[in-house]
Amino acid sequence: MAAPAKPLALTLGEPAGIGPDITIAAWLRRRELGLPAFYLLGDEALIAQRAKELAKTLGAEIRIATVSPGDAETAFADALPVVATGERATAAPGKPDASSAPAALASIRQAVSDVRAGRASAVVTNPIAKSVLYRAGFRHPGHTEFLAELASLDGHLPQPVMMLWSPRLAVVPVTIHVSLREALTQLTSELIVSTVRIVATELTSRFGIARPRIAISGLNPHAGEDGSLGHEEQTVIAPALKVLRNDGIDARGPLPADTMFHEAARNTYDCAVCMYHDQALIPIKTVAFDDAVNVTLGLPFIRTSPDHGTAFDIAGTGKANPASLIAALKLASRMAAANS
Amino acid sequence: MAAPAKPLALTLGEPAGIGPDITIAAWLRRRELGLPAFYLLGDEALIAQRAKELAKTLGAEIRIATVSPGDAETAFADALPVVATGERATAAPGKPDASSAPAALASIRQAVSDVRAGRASAVVTNPIAKSVLYRAGFRHPGHTEFLAELASLDGHLPQPVMMLWSPRLAVVPVTIHVSLREALTQLTSELIVSTVRIVATELTSRFGIARPRIAISGLNPHAGEDGSLGHEEQTVIAPALKVLRNDGIDARGPLPADTMFHEAARNTYDCAVCMYHDQALIPIKTVAFDDAVNVTLGLPFIRTSPDHGTAFDIAGTGKANPASLIAALKLASRMAAANS
Repeated sequence: MAAPAKPLALTLGEPAGIGPDITIAAWLRRRELGLPAFYLLGDEALIAQRAKELAKTLGAEIRIATVSPGDAETAFADALPVVATGERATAAPGKPDASSAPAALASIRQAVSDVRAGRASAVVTNPIAKSVLYRAGFRHPGHTEFLAELASLDGHLPQPVMMLWSPRLAVVPVTIHVSLREALTQLTSELIVSTVRIVATELTSRFGIARPRIAISGLNPHAGEDGSLGHEEQTVIAPALKVLRNDGIDARGPLPADTMFHEAARNTYDCAVCMYHDQALIPIKTVAFDDAVNVTLGLPFIRTSPDHGTAFDIAGTGKANPASLIAALKLASRMAAANS
Repeated sequence: MAAPAKPLALTLGEPAGIGPDITIAAWLRRRELGLPAFYLLGDEALIAQRAKELAKTLGAEIRIATVSPGDAETAFADALPVVATGERATAAPGKPDASSAPAALASIRQAVSDVRAGRASAVVTNPIAKSVLYRAGFRHPGHTEFLAELASLDGHLPQPVMMLWSPRLAVVPVTIHVSLREALTQLTSELIVSTVRIVATELTSRFGIARPRIAISGLNPHAGEDGSLGHEEQTVIAPALKVLRNDGIDARGPLPADTMFHEAARNTYDCAVCMYHDQALIPIKTVAFDDAVNVTLGLPFIRTSPDHGTAFDIAGTGKANPASLIAALKLASRMAAANS
C-alpha cells in the first residue's frame, strides 16, 4: 500500500463533541500505528485549549502547528497540523453552542475545496451534531447530503451511497435513515440498480478490487421463500439483479439475510448490499463495533468518517476511543493510494 | 449441572434428510462430549440401513438397540437406542417420499406423549420437510404449531415462542415467519407483552436465571430517533414495556437494534426480544452459525431442535455437521435439570 501523495483533510466536526479529542488521540499514536499524515481544519485556539485539557489524561505533550495544507505533511511528525478556517469555535466540551456552527460548516466546506483542488487526497469527517446545526439555520438532512451538495459544482447532484466498512465485512444499505415502513415504500428496482452500480464501480476504482463480488440480500425472512413469505424478492430485487448482471456486475442474490454474515459466508463476497438500515448495520456492528468506518461512495472525492456520534457526555475527558477515526484515516489513505 | 432423570426423546424428522445422519454422528461422540442419553423414535430398519451406509465414512461401527424408553438410558452407552413407532419409513437419502410422512408424524406424536407421561425429560426434534408432509395431508403451518396442538390436551392452545439460543446470545423474534410487510401489521403491544412474559417466566423456570434481564429492540433505525424515524417505538413498544415493568419484569428498551449485539452489549442481558425475524436471526447466525439451537418456549414441556433444515443434498453422505443437534441435546438436558 503506497502512501498517498497528499495529506488527508480532517474536519473539525462538532466543536463541543469528541472530534477534537479523538483527533488529538489519533495524532499521538501516529508513529506507533504508522498513520498517514492529516491536518485538522479548525480553530487553533479551540484545539490548543482541548490539548491542554487532555494532556494530563493522555500523558503526553501535544504540540500544535498552524500550517497551510502544503506544509501539513512535513509538520505532521512533530506537531498536530491545524489549517485555520477563520471561524472561531468557543463551545466548551459537552456544551454545544449554536454560535460554533459556522466553524463546523466552514471546516467541511474547506475540506471539500481542498480535496477538489488537489491540496488533500481525501476528506475525513469528524462527527457533527445535526440538532445544533439546525438551530443555526442548517437546512440539509445530514452530513452526507451537505457533502453531496458541495460536490455538485456542475449542477448535477451526485447520489451519495453509504457504506460501512471493516476488514471483516463491508455493507451498504439501499434505504437508510427512514422508518421501516417508509423503507418498504422507497425500495425500488431502480434504487437497487443505481446503488449497486456505484458500489461496483468504486470497489474497483477506490478499493482496487478488479472484479467485485456483491451479495444482495432479500427483504423478507428466508428471502421470501419462493414468494410464500413476501413478494419483493420476485417483483423488486430479482429484476434489479437481472439489469446488474446484464451490466456484467457479479451480483448474487437475493440471499436470505440471516445466513449472509457468518465468517464463511462473508469470505465469499466483497460487499453486502442490504435493503434497509438494520439489515446492514446489525451485522457490521456485531462483528466490528469499535473499528467500522463510514464511507460515502458516489462523490467525486474520497470521504470516510468514524462510525459514531459526538458523545457529548465524554467530550474533554480523554475517555473517547479513537479506534474508528484511526480506521477512517487508514482507509481513506488506502483508498487514495488505490485511486492514484 | 445434574444429569436429567430421564432420557431425551429425539424425533426422526424427515427420513430422507440428514436427521438420521446427525443422530448417528452425535451418538458416536457421546463419550467424548459427555452427551445426555437420548433415544430415537423411528423405524429401526431405516436407521440400521443408514448406519450401514455411514459406517465407512464415519469410520466406526454403529450398534443399534431396539428398546422401550425405560431401557434407553442403560442401552445408550453401547448402542444407539431406537424406540419403534410402528410406522415404516422407506425413503432413500436425498429422495423424499410422501409415503414416509406417517413415520415422521408418528415420531413427533410419540415424543410428545412420552414427555407428557414422564418417560422422557424433553423432546428434541430433527428437521422435517414441510412440503413433503403437505403432500401427505399435513395441515399445520409448521413443526412448532403441530407441537402446540399436541400440547393442547385441555382445549387451550398454548402460544409457542421461538427462541434461538447459543452460549453467546439468545434471541426471540416477536413476529416470525411472515413477510416484513405483514410483520409490521402483526406487531402489537399485546403480542410483545405475551411473548416477553413467556420468555421471562421460562428464563427462570427452564434456564435457572432468577431475575432475567430482557433487552427489547426498537423496530426502526436508531429505535426511531425520538419519533423522527418511525413512531412504533412510542405507540407500540413503549406501552408494552410499561406493562412488563409493572409485572416486575426487567425489560429494557426500545434499544437501537444495530448496537445491541456486539460482545459488550450482549453481556448486559440474558435474552434479546426483537420485532421481526431477521432482526433476531441475523445477529445470532452471525455469531453462532454452527451451534445455535432452536428452543420452543410456551409449551408444557421442553423442546429443542437443531437450527437447520433437512439438507437433502448431503443426506447419507456423512458430511452433515451434527454440531447444532449436539447443542440441542445438551441444552435440552440442561433445561430439564433446571426444571427438575
